Amino acid sequence: MPNSATIHDQAASERPPLRIAVAGLGTVGAGVIRLLEENRDLITRRAGRPIEVVAVSARDRNKDRGIDLSPYRWEDDMDDLAALADVDAVVEVIGGSDGPALTLARNTLKRGKPFVTANKAMIAHHGMELATIADSSDIPLKFEAAVAGGIPVIKALREGASANRITRVYGILNGTCNFILTKMEAEGRDFADVLTEAQAKGYAEADPSFDVDGVDAGHKLSILAAMCFGSRLDFGNVTTRGIRAITAADIREAETLGYRVRLIGMAEQGEDGLYQCVQPCLVPAEHPLGYVPGSLNAVVAEGNFVGRLFFEGAGAGDGPTASAVVADLIDVARNEYGPAFAMAVETLEALPVADSGGRSGKSYVRLIVADRTGVLAEIATAMRDAGVSVESFIQRGAQDGAALIAMVTHEGEARAVADAVSRLTASPNLLGDPVVMPILDL
Amino acid sequence: MPNSATIHDQAASERPPLRIAVAGLGTVGAGVIRLLEENRDLITRRAGRPIEVVAVSARDRNKDRGIDLSPYRWEDDMDDLAALADVDAVVEVIGGSDGPALTLARNTLKRGKPFVTANKAMIAHHGMELATIADSSDIPLKFEAAVAGGIPVIKALREGASANRITRVYGILNGTCNFILTKMEAEGRDFADVLTEAQAKGYAEADPSFDVDGVDAGHKLSILAAMCFGSRLDFGNVTTRGIRAITAADIREAETLGYRVRLIGMAEQGEDGLYQCVQPCLVPAEHPLGYVPGSLNAVVAEGNFVGRLFFEGAGAGDGPTASAVVADLIDVARNEYGPAFAMAVETLEALPVADSGGRSGKSYVRLIVADRTGVLAEIATAMRDAGVSVESFIQRGAQDGAALIAMVTHEGEARAVADAVSRLTASPNLLGDPVVMPILDL
Repeated sequence: MPNSATIHDQAASERPPLRIAVAGLGTVGAGVIRLLEENRDLITRRAGRPIEVVAVSARDRNKDRGIDLSPYRWEDDMDDLAALADVDAVVEVIGGSDGPALTLARNTLKRGKPFVTANKAMIAHHGMELATIADSSDIPLKFEAAVAGGIPVIKALREGASANRITRVYGILNGTCNFILTKMEAEGRDFADVLTEAQAKGYAEADPSFDVDGVDAGHKLSILAAMCFGSRLDFGNVTTRGIRAITAADIREAETLGYRVRLIGMAEQGEDGLYQCVQPCLVPAEHPLGYVPGSLNAVVAEGNFVGRLFFEGAGAGDGPTASAVVADLIDVARNEYGPAFAMAVETLEALPVADSGGRSGKSYVRLIVADRTGVLAEIATAMRDAGVSVESFIQRGAQDGAALIAMVTHEGEARAVADAVSRLTASPNLLGDPVVMPILDL
Repeated sequence: MPNSATIHDQAASERPPLRIAVAGLGTVGAGVIRLLEENRDLITRRAGRPIEVVAVSARDRNKDRGIDLSPYRWEDDMDDLAALADVDAVVEVIGGSDGPALTLARNTLKRGKPFVTANKAMIAHHGMELATIADSSDIPLKFEAAVAGGIPVIKALREGASANRITRVYGILNGTCNFILTKMEAEGRDFADVLTEAQAKGYAEADPSFDVDGVDAGHKLSILAAMCFGSRLDFGNVTTRGIRAITAADIREAETLGYRVRLIGMAEQGEDGLYQCVQPCLVPAEHPLGYVPGSLNAVVAEGNFVGRLFFEGAGAGDGPTASAVVADLIDVARNEYGPAFAMAVETLEALPVADSGGRSGKSYVRLIVADRTGVLAEIATAMRDAGVSVESFIQRGAQDGAALIAMVTHEGEARAVADAVSRLTASPNLLGDPVVMPILDL
C-alpha cells in the first residue's frame, strides 16, 4: 500500500516549480537538499507545486558532503545567485552575521526575490534593514530556522498566537548549554569537565563562547521579542550572561531548594520598555522548562487571551533545521507570507530599554568565602546595608579552608542584590566570583 | 509610554475591514467579541486591516451574556448570515455536528465566503464535504480552535512541520479527562467522586459522556490525522475507550511501575493503513505527556526530519478558544490560507483501517478477582494459552475477599492480551470488568 509520502498529485506536480538556489553546503545545506529529495512528492502536494533546487554554491566545490550534488548546477558566484534567470528564490545557510550571507541577502531581496535563511546572527544584527527591503516590495524574508531550529515557533507566535498581546516570551534557546547543564545535573560534574566532553563529541564548538556565553541565545531572543511585541529588533540591548561560572555545587544547592539551573532567554514588554536578558536562572522543578532534556530547545509565550503556550523540540541539527527552512519554502511556494516581522516594519516600535535593576523577584546568591570568624557577619551586613532580605541561608564547608554560602533572597529588586554583592567583592574573604541567579517564579 | 497593543497603524486601520458575522454567543462567541474589542489595534496591525463584527446571531436574543452587544446588528436568521451584503466572513461558535452549525457552514461556503469555526464535531463528521465546497472555489475554511483550543497546533502541523512526513501524532486532547485523571492521581480518589466534583465546579458537563468516553478527543484526533497524513478524515474509524473504568488503584499501580495514566489519542500511519485510537494509556513518568497538568492539552508529532515536536497549552475556555478563532480570522484578512486540509481535498488519500489487534507493545492488565485457591492458576493458564508473556505481576488483597491483580506483559500483540482477558471473562472468579491499558513506550 502506498503511503502518503509517495502519493502523486498530478495537478500540483505539473504546476510551474519554485526554483531555488542553495548557498552554503554544510550539514544544514546538505540537509535541505536531502529533505527536498526524500520528501519530494509530499512537499509538492503541500506546496501545491514542486520545489526544485536548480543551483548550489559554497566556498569549496570539492569537499565531500555525503550527498550527490551532480543534479544541481554549481555556481561559483555566491554573491548574486538571485541574478540567475532561472532562480526564483534563494536559501542561505552559510551563517555569519555579515560577509557573504549578508551580501547575498541584500542582493536577493533587492532583486525582488524571496530569501529564506537559517541565520540567526544575521537576522539579529541586520533584520530591520533586510525587512525594510523585503517589505518595501512585498517580498518574503523568512527565517523560521533561525530560532529554536525545528520548532515552528516563529510560525506559532507570528500567526498562531497573532490575536494576543504577548506579554512575555522566554525559553531554552541554546541546546549546547542545556546539554551541558543537564549533564552536570545528572552526573554531578563541573562545567569545564562536561564542556570538554561535549567538544570531543561534537556537541560543542572548539570555540564555545557563542553558545556558553549566551550570545547565540541572545540572537534568537531578540528575534522572538520583535516578533512578539511588534517592536524593532534590538539585539544590541540584550543582556547576556553565560553558564561558565555555574558549578556542580550550584546545581546541587538549586536542587535541594526545588529548582533546576537552566540558561533562560527572556523578553518582556513592561511599562518602562523592553527587557531582554539571557542568563542562567533557577527554574522550579515542576515548570515545563525544568523538564527539557539534553540538547532540546523550548519556548514559552504568554498571551493575554491564550494564556501560556509551551513548545519543545530539536533546536539544532541538520534534519530539524532543514525542516524549518523547507517549511518557509513551502509558504513561499504557496504565496502565503506576510511582512517579515508580522507587521509592516515601519510600524514596529522602537521601545526604550527597561531598567533591569528594577526587576523584582527572588534571587539565588552563591559565594565561596574563607572559612574565618567574622565572614558571616560581613555577608549579613552587606545584605542588610543593601536592603536585601534573606529567605534561606546555607553554609557548607568546602575544601581548603573555604566555605560555600548559598542564599535565597526574599522578593526584591535585582539592583539591591547586585549592590549587596558589590559590597563584598573588595573583601579579602571572598574567594572567586559570586554567582547570582534570578529565581523564575512563573 | 504606549505599549504595542495601543500603537496605531494608520495605513492598516484605513484599509477596508474584514467584516464578520458571529453565530453563537455562548462563552466562546462572547470571548471572540471581547478579544476583537480588547486587542483591536494590535489585530489591525497584524492583519494589515481592521476586523469588524457587523452582525451577531444566536438562539436567544435576550439572554444576558455579560458583554455589550449594542454595537452589533442582531440577525434573527442564523442560517444564512453570509447572504448579508456587508458580511465578508462568518464565524461559527454554535457547536453541534449538524443542525444550524452545518446549515450555516454549507450556506456560507456555497456563497463563496470564508468560514471560521471552533466546531470539532462538525469538522469530524462533515469536514470532507465542507472542504470540498471550500477548495472548489478556493475559499478559506479554517478550524484552528477545533483542536486543542488555544494551542496553534493545526497551524504548526499544517504549515510549521509541512516539510515532514509525519509518522505519528498523539496527545492529551481532552482537558476534562486530564483534569479528572491528574486529580485522581494527586488525591488518591476514585473516578466517580472526582467527576462529581468537576461537574459541581463546571469543569465537566452534566452529561459527561462526550468527554469521559473519549468522543471529543476522537473528533480532534481524526482532524489531526487528516492534517498530518494527507489522508481523508475518517472519524468513523476512530476507536474510543474512555476513562470511566480507571480506579485510584490503577493509578497507584501505574505509579509504582513508573507510569502515569492519561487519556491518549493516537493516530499513526503504518504499512497496513491508518490507526486511530483514543484510550487510557500508561505514559512513562518522564515523557512530556506525563507532566501535562490539570485541564491543559498537549500534542506530540513525530516528523521524519524534525523529530519529536511537543506543544502544550489551554485546550478549552473562552480566551484560548477565541485566540484560535481570531488567529484564523487574521489569516483570512491577510489572505494567507491554503486548502482546508493542507492539500487539495480530492488528493487526500482514503487509507484502509489498520489492524489494531496487530499493534505490538507492553500492556497493563488489571483484574479484580475472588481471593480463592486456584484463581492464580486460572489467570496464569489464560495468559499462557493466549500466548501472553508476563513481565511483572502483583497481587494485593482488596476488600471483602477480593484481590487486585495488576500485570505488565512483555512486548506482544494487542490481540493476544485481548484473547487472554476474554478467556477469563466467563470465570465466576472475575469480579467486575478487567482493565487493559497499553503502555506508551515512545
